[in-house]
Amino acid sequence: MIEDKNQQRTQLGDLGEFGLIDHLTKNFKIKQKSTVKGIGDDSAVLNFENNKVVVTTDLLVEGVHFDLSYMPLKHLGYKAIMVNLSDVYAMNAKATQVTVSIAVSNRFPLEALEDLYAGIETAANIYKVDLVGGDTTSSNTGLLISVTAIGAINANNEVYRNGARPNDLLVVSGDLGAAYMGLQVLEREKEVYKVNPNSQPDLEGYSYIIERQLKPEARQDIVELLSDLNVKPTAMIDISDGLSSEIIHICKQSKVGCDLYENKIPLDPQVISTCEEFNIDSTMVALNGGEDYELLFTISQDDFPKIKANPNLTIIGHIKEESEGLHLVTRADTRIPLKAQGWKNFND
Amino acid sequence: MIEDKNQQRTQLGDLGEFGLIDHLTKNFKIKQKSTVKGIGDDSAVLNFENNKVVVTTDLLVEGVHFDLSYMPLKHLGYKAIMVNLSDVYAMNAKATQVTVSIAVSNRFPLEALEDLYAGIETAANIYKVDLVGGDTTSSNTGLLISVTAIGAINANNEVYRNGARPNDLLVVSGDLGAAYMGLQVLEREKEVYKVNPNSQPDLEGYSYIIERQLKPEARQDIVELLSDLNVKPTAMIDISDGLSSEIIHICKQSKVGCDLYENKIPLDPQVISTCEEFNIDSTMVALNGGEDYELLFTISQDDFPKIKANPNLTIIGHIKEESEGLHLVTRADTRIPLKAQGWKNFND
Repeated sequence: MIEDKNQQRTQLGDLGEFGLIDHLTKNFKIKQKSTVKGIGDDSAVLNFENNKVVVTTDLLVEGVHFDLSYMPLKHLGYKAIMVNLSDVYAMNAKATQVTVSIAVSNRFPLEALEDLYAGIETAANIYKVDLVGGDTTSSNTGLLISVTAIGAINANNEVYRNGARPNDLLVVSGDLGAAYMGLQVLEREKEVYKVNPNSQPDLEGYSYIIERQLKPEARQDIVELLSDLNVKPTAMIDISDGLSSEIIHICKQSKVGCDLYENKIPLDPQVISTCEEFNIDSTMVALNGGEDYELLFTISQDDFPKIKANPNLTIIGHIKEESEGLHLVTRADTRIPLKAQGWKNFND
Repeated sequence: MIEDKNQQRTQLGDLGEFGLIDHLTKNFKIKQKSTVKGIGDDSAVLNFENNKVVVTTDLLVEGVHFDLSYMPLKHLGYKAIMVNLSDVYAMNAKATQVTVSIAVSNRFPLEALEDLYAGIETAANIYKVDLVGGDTTSSNTGLLISVTAIGAINANNEVYRNGARPNDLLVVSGDLGAAYMGLQVLEREKEVYKVNPNSQPDLEGYSYIIERQLKPEARQDIVELLSDLNVKPTAMIDISDGLSSEIIHICKQSKVGCDLYENKIPLDPQVISTCEEFNIDSTMVALNGGEDYELLFTISQDDFPKIKANPNLTIIGHIKEESEGLHLVTRADTRIPLKAQGWKNFND
C-alpha cells in the first residue's frame, strides 16, 4: 500500500544466476557446527554425528499465501523461514539449516530481492540457522518461495503426532486467532485504499494482531522451555491450519478422542475486541483461523506440576478414548463435535 | 503435441490438500534404512548415524525449464528427481531421500498430477530414494516443481569442486551435447505442429538425443564405479550448464588452470549427425549445451591405470597451474581461451 516511488531499480538480468545468488547471500554467516559446507558446491555437506535429522518443506506462492500490497518483502522473507522452522520445532528438534529457492518475475528489481533476503537473514541470525543452498530462477508471474528446513534431535527425543494417550493433557503455547484477525484488518484497509489511494491505513490499535500476521515467530523458545522443564510431550504439532484441524490430526494419528474447553482457549484482548468489531465469533477464529504457528502438544498428567504455572502454556483440554470422539465443550457446557473447517470454508 | 482428448479429468478441488498428498503418494514405499519417518508428520525424521549428509535443491518452472507441449508429465516427474540426484552424486554421495513440492494451476486435472507422480515414483524406485515430504499448493499459472534431495557419505568421502591440482586428469562420464540437440529437434517439431496440427512429429533417427532431453539419468553408476575402482576424484561437479561452465567452476574454485582437448570430447554419432543437419558446431554444443547430467571430475595421474580402459569414462584434458589459464586445444592444435556461454547466448 505504501510504495516508495523513489526506490532504486536494478534489473535482475544485469546479474547472471550465479551473480544473483552470490550477491543475495554474501552477508550470511555459518553459525552451526553441523554445517561442513554451505552454499557454493553441488550440494551442502552437513555432519550431525549421532543426532537424528528432521526435514520439512513449504511453498509460499504470491496471490495464494501472501499479498505484496500489504506484506513487505522483508517480512515475507522472515515469515517464509518461520513457517518452516515451526515444523522443525513441532518435532521437538533444534533447527540448524535452511535452503531457500525463489522463482521471480522480471517485475521485481534486485532491490526487492535484497529486501526479501534481508528478512531471511534476520530470521537466520535470530534463530541461528544456516542458509546452505537454494536456487533462483525466473517465473512468468509473481514470486514463489520454496524453503526446506533441517534440524537435529538428540537421542530419541523426537515427538510425533501419534503418541497422545487417554488422560493426557492438551496444551497450547501462546494465544490463538491473532494472525487471522490481523489479516482481516489488512484486507479491510486494502479495500479502503483501492477506493481512495490517498488514504493512510488506519492500523492504530491493531499492532499485535498485524504483527502476528506479517511477522510470526516460530516457538523455538517452547522447545527449549520443555527441555528445561524436563517435559517430553507425548504428541506435538504446530498450528498452521487452525486449532481444530491440528487437534484432529493428533487424535486421528494417535487413535484417541478429546475434550477441548472453549473457555480455556487463550485469546489476546486485541483478538477479542477485533472479533467484536468484525462481528465474528472469537472461538471460531481460534479454531479455524490458522497461521498462528503456536505449538499444540499433549503431556502425561504426571508432568502437570512442571508446566502449570507457566504463562506461555495453557491447558485447553484432555485426551479421551477414541470411542468417546472429539468434542468442543462450550461455555454453556454443551458438547459439540469438533470439525476442521480451515481457511476456505470459514465465511460460508 | 499428442493430446489424448478422451482423458479423464478430475478437478483438484474435489480433493483437499491432505487428500491430494495422500492420494499421490499412497504407492510410495520406504526403502532406505535411514528413513525413520517419511510423510505424515510435521517433518520427516532421518537417521544417518555417523555418515555425513548432503542436501541440494532445484526448482523447475513451466515455460522456463520445461514445455509441456512436448514434455510428458511422467517424464517431467522423472527428470525433476534426476536433476537433483545428479547434484548428490556430484558430491560422491549416495542419494537417500527427496522431498517434492508442487504449485499447480487448476487447469491440471488430478490425472495429470498422477502422471507426474508416476514419474517421480519410477525414479524413486530405480534410484532407491524415499519420498519423505513435500507440499502441494495452487498457483495462478502453470506448474512449478521444487525438489530437495538428501544423500549420505561415509567417513570423509565427499568430493568438492575445489580439490583439483596441477597435473590431475580431467575426466567426463558418458557423452555430451545430446540433451541440447534433442531439445532442438523437439522445438523444430513443435513449430511444424503449430503450422499444421495434423502432422505427426518426425522423430525417427533422433531417439537417443530426445531421450537424453526428456528422460536423463543421473550417474549413480559412476559413483559406484569409482568406489569399486577405488578412485576418489580430487574434484567433481555435474554437467548441468554445459562443459565449459563446469570446467570453469572447478578451476576457479580449485585455483588452477586447464587444457581441454577438443578431439577428446565424447559425442554420440546422433549428436554429430544432428549437428550437421542443424548446421551447428558439435563442439560448441558439448561446451555450452547443458542438461547432460554427466559427471565431470579430476583424478590424480596415479589413478590413470584404474580408469583407462573404462568405456563409461573419457579423459578430456588435464589440470595446469592457475597462471597458465583455461584453454580449449582445438583439432587444428590452436589454443583458445575457454569461456562459459551457457544456454542464453548460445545462438548469438
